[in-house]
Parts: sequence; C-alpha cells; structure tokens
Amino acid sequence: MIYLDNAATTRPDRNSVQRALRFLENDFFNPSALYKEGFDIHREFESARKSLLSHIADSASFEFLFTSCGSESDNQVLFSCARRGNFVTTEGEHAAIYNAAAELKKRGIDVRFARLNADGSVNEEDLLSQIDGNTSLVSVIHVNNETGAINDIAKLASLAKMKNPDLVFHSDGVQAFGKIPFRLTKEIDFYTVSAHKIGGIRGIAGLARGKRRNLYPLIYGGGQEGGLRGGTENVFAAKQFEYAAERKFSALEKDFEKVKKFNESFRTGLDGAVFRILSADTASPYILSIAAPGLRGETLQHMIDDHGVVVGTGSACSSRNRFSRVILACGADEKTADGVLRISFSAENTGSEIAEAIRIINLCARTLADKMK
Amino acid sequence: MIYLDNAATTRPDRNSVQRALRFLENDFFNPSALYKEGFDIHREFESARKSLLSHIADSASFEFLFTSCGSESDNQVLFSCARRGNFVTTEGEHAAIYNAAAELKKRGIDVRFARLNADGSVNEEDLLSQIDGNTSLVSVIHVNNETGAINDIAKLASLAKMKNPDLVFHSDGVQAFGKIPFRLTKEIDFYTVSAHKIGGIRGIAGLARGKRRNLYPLIYGGGQEGGLRGGTENVFAAKQFEYAAERKFSALEKDFEKVKKFNESFRTGLDGAVFRILSADTASPYILSIAAPGLRGETLQHMIDDHGVVVGTGSACSSRNRFSRVILACGADEKTADGVLRISFSAENTGSEIAEAIRIINLCARTLADKMK
Repeated sequence: MIYLDNAATTRPDRNSVQRALRFLENDFFNPSALYKEGFDIHREFESARKSLLSHIADSASFEFLFTSCGSESDNQVLFSCARRGNFVTTEGEHAAIYNAAAELKKRGIDVRFARLNADGSVNEEDLLSQIDGNTSLVSVIHVNNETGAINDIAKLASLAKMKNPDLVFHSDGVQAFGKIPFRLTKEIDFYTVSAHKIGGIRGIAGLARGKRRNLYPLIYGGGQEGGLRGGTENVFAAKQFEYAAERKFSALEKDFEKVKKFNESFRTGLDGAVFRILSADTASPYILSIAAPGLRGETLQHMIDDHGVVVGTGSACSSRNRFSRVILACGADEKTADGVLRISFSAENTGSEIAEAIRIINLCARTLADKMK
Repeated sequence: MIYLDNAATTRPDRNSVQRALRFLENDFFNPSALYKEGFDIHREFESARKSLLSHIADSASFEFLFTSCGSESDNQVLFSCARRGNFVTTEGEHAAIYNAAAELKKRGIDVRFARLNADGSVNEEDLLSQIDGNTSLVSVIHVNNETGAINDIAKLASLAKMKNPDLVFHSDGVQAFGKIPFRLTKEIDFYTVSAHKIGGIRGIAGLARGKRRNLYPLIYGGGQEGGLRGGTENVFAAKQFEYAAERKFSALEKDFEKVKKFNESFRTGLDGAVFRILSADTASPYILSIAAPGLRGETLQHMIDDHGVVVGTGSACSSRNRFSRVILACGADEKTADGVLRISFSAENTGSEIAEAIRIINLCARTLADKMK
C-alpha cells in the first residue's frame, strides 16, 4: 500500500511511539500529584513543552500550551479573542476556523472573509481592506490544507498591525509545523500546531502564545496549563509528540528537498491530457492538489485505492461535502471541483512508491475517462 | 512501589494497550477519509462507541460522544445547557464543573450550589429547594472524587424533573464508570465518563447523551461526532478505552468485592489514635478519605512516598490549594482538612500490598506525630 494522504493524518513515527511507551507502562503518574513520582512526570511534561516550542520560537517571547487537537487550539483563540467588533479571516481556512467563525457570527460578531487568489492563498489587498479599528482578531491559515498555498503570515501580521495595533493575529500552522522552515515573529500572537500531521499521535496538539497575550480557557478545570486548559495532562502523547517533532525538525530541510522531488515527479509525470495541477509552484511541496475535470474525484479515488494507492479528495475534515468550499473559493468551476484529488507526501515515502503511484493514477484516470466516453 | 492514587489516574491496562497498538502501527488511517482503509477504521471507531455505551445504557435511548477528557465533557454540557435562568449544582463537584460554573456566573447565569452532608454527598433537600421553574441545568457528581460519597443520581434526577420537567440533568460519572454497578435512567440527560480512571489512557473520554437532547459543540470543526466535536477522531485511544472498559465491566462485581475488602482492611487497620475516617461506610470502596488532624497531609504524604507507598491528598486536580474545598464543605475544620489523605484503590492492587501500605502509613503517621510533640 502506498500512502499519499499525509495531510489527513500520518503514520505515527514508530521510534517515537516506542520511546514514549514508558509513559504508559511505568511512568504513568498524574503530573499534578505532589509526590515525587508525580513531580518527575511533571518535569518530563514541561521538557516536552519546552522542546516543542523551541522549534518555532524563542522562549523569551512565546509560551506553549498543550491542547487535545488543532481544532481545539483554533477554537480557543477564536472564542477568546473575537469577543467584540469584527473578526477577519479568509475563505481558505480549515473547518475548525470556518465553522467556529459561523458560530461567532451567530453570537453577534461581525465576521469577514477575505477572498482567495487562484492558488488558495489569501488575497492580501482584500484581507487588509477588511481590517479596521474595530477588528479584534485576524486569523490566516499558514499553509492551506487543500492546495498547499503558503501565506506569508509574518508579513500579513505586520501589515495587519500597522492598520490596527490592538488586534490579535492568529494562524493555523497545522500543515506548516515540521514541514516549512519558519519561526514566529513578534506580530504573531497565537499559532496552532498539531502532532498527528508529523508522525505524532492524535489527542495532543499545541498553541504557541506570545507572552502576556490574553487568553481564556475553552475547557475549565483543575488548573492545568496555568489555568488555561483543564484535564489531566496527556503525558504519553506529549512526549511522543516531542520525540516525533525532534525527528521532523532535525531533518526538515533534507525532507523538504526530498518531498519537493516527489512533488515535481508528479507535476511532470501526471497525464496532462486528463489532469490539471491546481497547486502553485510556490505551494508547500507536501500538498499537491490536482483536478481531472469531467471525472468524479471520489470514483477516481476508489479506483486508485483498489490498486493500492491511498490519496485524498480535498480535506478529510470536509469529506462529507461533494464540492470543496476552498477549491470553489479559488475560482474553480464545479466540473473541476468535482474531480479534485489531494496528493500529500511524507518524507517516509520512497522514490519508487512515487513512480508507481503516478503510473497507477494515470492508468485509473485514463480508464475512467474512456469508460465515460 | 505500592500505588494507591488510582482516583488521580490509573496505570493503563497493558493488555488493552497492546491490543490497541495496531491503530498506531498499521491501522492509523483517518476515519473520515473516503477510501476503504478509512472506512474500516471508521467502523472500528463506531464499534468502540457502541461497546462503551452498552455498559451503562441502552442504545435505543442514549448515544455516546467521544471527547478528549472528562473536563471537556463536563464543560460541553455546562456551556450548552446553562445558557439562561439558573444552574443548580453542588459544593462537591470536580473542578471541571466548579470552575466552569464560576465562568457561567461571570456570563450572567444565576449559579446555585447545594450544600453537602458530612460524608460529601449532596444534601437532597437543599438541592431540591434551589431548583425552580427557571432552572435550565442541574449537575450532580455521581461519586465524589475526594470522599467517594455516592449520590443517588437516578433518584435526584427524577425528583428534580418533578419540580421542573424542562430542566436538563447531568452527572459527572468519572469516578463511578467501571466501578459502581449502575445504568442510566431516562431522567438523566447527560453523563460524563473518562478512560484514564479505569486503565484507559489519557486523551479520550465520553459523554453519554439522551437521544434528541440538545447539545452544542464546544469545539467546532470538520463535522466529526455528528458535528458536535471537531478534531480528527482519536481511534487508538478510543479502542484502548473500549478494551480497558470491557475488562473492567466484565469483572465489575468481583473487583468491587475485592476493593471493598481493601477498604475494610484500611478502616480496621489504620491507627485510630492518629487517623479519622472521613468517608462513610456507604461510599464507593474505591476511595477512602482519611484525616490525621494536627498533621500536615502533604508532609505525611511525602514520608509515606519515601517508604514506597503512593497516596493522594484530596484531588490531584486541586493539589495547588492547601485545603480541599470539598472537605471543608463537608463541615471539617481546617485542622482536619490540612491532614487529609486520599487512598484510592484498584483491583490490580493485592492484599499484601494493602497490608504493607497500612503498616507504613501507620508508622509514618506515628513518627510524624512524635516529632511534633
């Protein structure tokens, strides 16, 4: 089986799981307990926090909060920071932001969506034009989870704050963390990361937070996470996340180059008579969105799956909808949007897997196209 | 090491972890994905849901929602169902309810706390007297996490609804699930359970929900959990929870009798000149709260820990406060409340561990009492 849906979830890194298992087997204590076994685990938990933050920010300016998933991090920022005035976001956000924004609207917040460019990046001019003195929060996805388009969030945060220095700037970095070289700048107040897109397990994620930035809990409880997130600390998952991230960040540039070659092989190897490449050349190499206009993406996906190659259609989180909201917002017509596949790579893929996958995808697409004639 | 802080967290059941590991190693797919590998995982996830619910309710009347922790389940119910009028709860609640209630108060909800009896159970008369036609939600903990007092929530729910049939009744069952024989009745609308108190791992918990009971998401996202909880489904944790619960429920009565003997050994074996038993005879046998008035609980806990026995002081989730709010609400004076230890058992403990722990706890308490003379 050739797995090319790594933007939906990755195979947990085996070595990191093995290393972390001791926190299930022997070192399972509650880190909030006052006895020494609890305190030792508390220290392990704090070292995971420190290590994870170190990859993207300096600890003098940022803190790192553990949450249970990227959606939770996103929701906590939105419901904390968009309590008045208007909230400016984009049409290219993950469902966690998009659907939380719909709820904010119901609660009386003026929610504004900036348009996308054809590649899925946000239109800078439109974004800035929607920001004004009443904007409380701006949230822009770092790497679009369907097209891979990279938004220059450092630049956007800086420009946004020139228009209104009091606004809070957040970015969902789930598809960027551990993949794209990047460090947080002082204009970025909050940044969402997740474990299970980089070989971590589910049940753990994070929120980097600029120091002294105001934040409220989404889950009230026993004072964990400095009072910002109740619930017994998920130490096993946090340590496995720490170990998986260590591996990813130590190989980030090497992996980036490797995955870029996979991406380029697809771009040159896909049958141009059937497929259109939707992702721009400047997109994250980890995500390649392609369309076979006139073919049904889901049907094609199943055929490819029957040949042992697993690819996505749009976002797994929006798989219940026939047309991807994001792909339509890029300006694609319904015929194109209906035939979209999302190929997403991991550095654990091999060159021969990529060659075989291209062969199979071309074969299936041609077979399906012939059937429909 | 003798571990007697099982109400804080339990050692994950080894067999269940081993059985579930395949969901990290090979069957790691996103259950929302449309290819067959995703769908197979979706079915596994749904079978975990069904199995977990079956232990406490029938599927004709109840549904089961996965969340990341008991605190999340509690918060979701409170912020969903206490949006108007008044919210009636007790002074014996876990921090997840207590602190979420404080937030509700800030949002303008009239929050009412019913008094406790000396054993930590809620005073029924006081609870009912606070319920009126404007009560939107009542939440009563099933088994108190500090004293083990059992509230008859089926009866309380029924009486509460006789006063106001429109109110929603919720109970936090985290210390009851898998320990106390119990099935949900139709007057109970929501019931919180958690994995890591019964040999499950952290990062997964549940909320049983009476069918057609209104509930809003706390975390908006990609439509998971019927739109009620965003975030990629934590399949490994859910399956491990399923397996651990299977084991617990299949041995529930046998374990109950076993732990009851442990509890009785403590009640008769503890040095009566030093210790007072706070938990009533009718309490859950899994939790035994004791006080050594005049001694500092934390100091005693550390001495006992140095001898290889791990016990708690009050709730791990409230370990940052010197005095337990719940123990004070039971009517204990500060001298008593300062010397509280919480002994909490598991059926994995052995009779010889219990005998040795009693010997050590008595020894440490006498040594400390002598020092203070």
